[in-house]
Amino acid sequence: MTAGAVRTLRIGPEDNVAVVLVANGLAAGAKLDEGTILQEDVPFGHKVALTDIAPGGAITRYGVTIGIAEQPLPRGAWVNEHRIRLPEPPDLSDLPPPAPAQRRLPDLAGYTFKGYRNADGSIGTRNILAISTSVQCVAGVVDHVVERVRAELLPRYPNVDGVVALNHAYGCGVAINAPDAAIPIRTLKNLARNPNFGGEVMVVGLGCEKLRPEWLLPEGDGTATMFTLQEASSGFAAMTEALLSRAEEHLVRLNRRRRETCPSAELVVGVQCGGSDAFSGVTANPAIGHAADLIVRAGGSVLFSEVTEVRDAVHLLAPRAADASVTEALAREMAWYDTYLARGGADRSANTTPGNKKGGLSGIVEKALGSVAKSGTTPLVDVLGPGERIRRRGLTFAATPAGDFVCGTLQLAAGMNLHIFSTGRGTPYNLSVVPTLKVATNSTLAARWHDLIDLDAGRIVTGDATVEEMGRDLFRFILDVASGRKTTAADRLGISNDLVLFNPAPVT
Amino acid sequence: MTAGAVRTLRIGPEDNVAVVLVANGLAAGAKLDEGTILQEDVPFGHKVALTDIAPGGAITRYGVTIGIAEQPLPRGAWVNEHRIRLPEPPDLSDLPPPAPAQRRLPDLAGYTFKGYRNADGSIGTRNILAISTSVQCVAGVVDHVVERVRAELLPRYPNVDGVVALNHAYGCGVAINAPDAAIPIRTLKNLARNPNFGGEVMVVGLGCEKLRPEWLLPEGDGTATMFTLQEASSGFAAMTEALLSRAEEHLVRLNRRRRETCPSAELVVGVQCGGSDAFSGVTANPAIGHAADLIVRAGGSVLFSEVTEVRDAVHLLAPRAADASVTEALAREMAWYDTYLARGGADRSANTTPGNKKGGLSGIVEKALGSVAKSGTTPLVDVLGPGERIRRRGLTFAATPAGDFVCGTLQLAAGMNLHIFSTGRGTPYNLSVVPTLKVATNSTLAARWHDLIDLDAGRIVTGDATVEEMGRDLFRFILDVASGRKTTAADRLGISNDLVLFNPAPVT
Repeated sequence: MTAGAVRTLRIGPEDNVAVVLVANGLAAGAKLDEGTILQEDVPFGHKVALTDIAPGGAITRYGVTIGIAEQPLPRGAWVNEHRIRLPEPPDLSDLPPPAPAQRRLPDLAGYTFKGYRNADGSIGTRNILAISTSVQCVAGVVDHVVERVRAELLPRYPNVDGVVALNHAYGCGVAINAPDAAIPIRTLKNLARNPNFGGEVMVVGLGCEKLRPEWLLPEGDGTATMFTLQEASSGFAAMTEALLSRAEEHLVRLNRRRRETCPSAELVVGVQCGGSDAFSGVTANPAIGHAADLIVRAGGSVLFSEVTEVRDAVHLLAPRAADASVTEALAREMAWYDTYLARGGADRSANTTPGNKKGGLSGIVEKALGSVAKSGTTPLVDVLGPGERIRRRGLTFAATPAGDFVCGTLQLAAGMNLHIFSTGRGTPYNLSVVPTLKVATNSTLAARWHDLIDLDAGRIVTGDATVEEMGRDLFRFILDVASGRKTTAADRLGISNDLVLFNPAPVT
Repeated sequence: MTAGAVRTLRIGPEDNVAVVLVANGLAAGAKLDEGTILQEDVPFGHKVALTDIAPGGAITRYGVTIGIAEQPLPRGAWVNEHRIRLPEPPDLSDLPPPAPAQRRLPDLAGYTFKGYRNADGSIGTRNILAISTSVQCVAGVVDHVVERVRAELLPRYPNVDGVVALNHAYGCGVAINAPDAAIPIRTLKNLARNPNFGGEVMVVGLGCEKLRPEWLLPEGDGTATMFTLQEASSGFAAMTEALLSRAEEHLVRLNRRRRETCPSAELVVGVQCGGSDAFSGVTANPAIGHAADLIVRAGGSVLFSEVTEVRDAVHLLAPRAADASVTEALAREMAWYDTYLARGGADRSANTTPGNKKGGLSGIVEKALGSVAKSGTTPLVDVLGPGERIRRRGLTFAATPAGDFVCGTLQLAAGMNLHIFSTGRGTPYNLSVVPTLKVATNSTLAARWHDLIDLDAGRIVTGDATVEEMGRDLFRFILDVASGRKTTAADRLGISNDLVLFNPAPVT
């Protein structure tokens, strides 16, 4: 490196752009380590052209075309979303077949965590009483009951970690027979079966709603209970007393449970990113991908999601499909989403946010390439529709919208018992149902939001850690948090977000 | 009436069905007061054929065709939703013009209430600090701040009635440029301007979200504040301290306000029904309609809503339009909703619920005829799109979905300062922003849910009160509650539901 030259980040050897790593950006005239001299100021996290790119020429990052130049972009120019257009998305009818010989990583044995065993074979990382609801109408009553359970009952059941109301906006005033109504309905049913609820299903309904409360009961479970407010013999006081006594039946059973040593094969880790920046794809997400590989090698399950952030990288993912049925399912979910967006006058380009762009991401292709890094490198064994429950161990694509809370809620319904979330711009995201570990993509955020961030993957950029080291740190942290030995930052603060259902069908 | 004959309810003189009023229903062989003998058992609230109706014959209630017989319905037969089909909806391109000489009710003078005057001319019925949010990401932090405001600050500002977080699922992960995105965006902006927030707008944003927090600020308001979490210098502790200090600035001003005597012309009453039954259209809703007439006669404003519950009665409503532009707007909003439903594979028949049907409503036409009764008899002066703010005094149709929380939230955005809600099956519905009066359509519900219901309109069926008497009672109750002299049942219990935005655009 010549004196005064500045280190930048270039990922693929064929990339014709590099990312500025200097916190305040670089001024015109600055010289990069590979010789390029900046023609103009370029902000932190943004891209510089490393060669002269003519209009119509491809912008290449991660070895992939992330955009097409809309104007001449001479060497040293700032490459941003205003100067490029998106390439066509990959053709879903022509995805590459599963690769004949996929890289097989060695199994990992001997890792365990302390979890709660459930009758259905799943393992909880917490021991929570959930009160499921069939309709928003009951939310006021259920919130009141939750507060009283917390204040009056929980102190007598010290082995129970907490009580949550599964409130939502669905259940009535919706087109319950519309083709897409199956999604929110199965989501609610599967949400009540999340491993952290110990198999205790307590449903509160109103009585006249479209979503029948009994639809939320699991088949053949003798311990599940259902209570509909309209059948209460007498008013609020009577219904809340009845609900408290119903809740106590569940608490008695939950309180008998203890953590047991479980193989890490019982982990079901959902990975997600939100508030992404240009570092997401080179720091936090690859580190999460490495941790995902470790979990899969240990026999566990990883869910990755966010259809619009996989859409433009699907041709890179398809060769990792375990078999042709997985490729088909992948194409089917992507196509469904294309249609869903088109129906509302949008397409996958609607995904990127002002913050993504400010952070240096020039469009959904670049964002997607960074996003799929979370999936690691293991074979893709299954694809779930939104709200479906996990079926196989290994790496599963759970098709969901990319909105943080919709995605998180659908991963909970899929059976996630621990959540990893990467963020570059910063979000105080947290779920109340499962521990949620937050990984910063850059050290600036990790330092500024010291009490909200769990892990700083920005150390990869500064050279203080490798992707593999961060991935291993994360894996160990996952085992500690899953065991209740360590607490996440957001849980220490006691904050959490709402559950948000995905209802692609109309409301009435 | 002959000995042993049973009183039933028949509304229009040309109706060929009557409704069973006996609490446990009537058995086959029972004789009705007008001579019909029941051919089979008919439940409470359900309809009996008063003449022989051939297949293809019209079922007439309220003087309107509510269905077409699908099988022979001899005199004395049970007329229910399985035996009839819906008629075609009214043709929107051929609505009747405004009636040349509409009935003009005499003005009502001298009624007042004690409200809070706002700088923009609106009047609050409460004095609340609202914390608006641009995105769900901030909800955990804002909920934490709301709890601390309640515990640490409110005791020092005794003239402030409370603090609410305007949390929602919108703001990011949504197609912000889709044609229909205008609806949730204007809803959020107008929600922050609800009269009960005293003109104090406090917006909390994240920073990188699609919905820019500044879009939620009113134009040219020097007191509005905005805080984005990503600009916080240092973590959670710092951002919450900053938010508390920001909240206190607003509390200082809110605390200086006092209730003043205001003409009842300043009322903006939103009317809604939920969990309807066959009595909704003959007891609670007409009583609400009468109260609506009194409010309009006193110079005030009434909002009625629920597009799918007006769609089949729109030809009856159109002659009440104040001018042709109102008719056009009515047709435009109905047509938009037809398209919206069709896009998702549904139509207006998706509105009715299992509870409606169990309660005796045989379809959306019958439900709609009962629902529009809430609008009273005054001219329709304006039509608002979903989330728009009220423009004129008098009776306005605020086009909204019929789902209770979506409708209530949109009426709040329109500027409602008091809410009337009728229910037959029973719902513990309540909003935290404005007082919400609940009217039972039948005395069985009012007795059973004695601590949740404010007014029993079932007294109209038993002959203990007329529609006009109930309407006047309701009007007086409205003035008392608007003045803070009386409290609603749900507010005494301290329960309330969530706000729910209407987002017809896709999520990404």
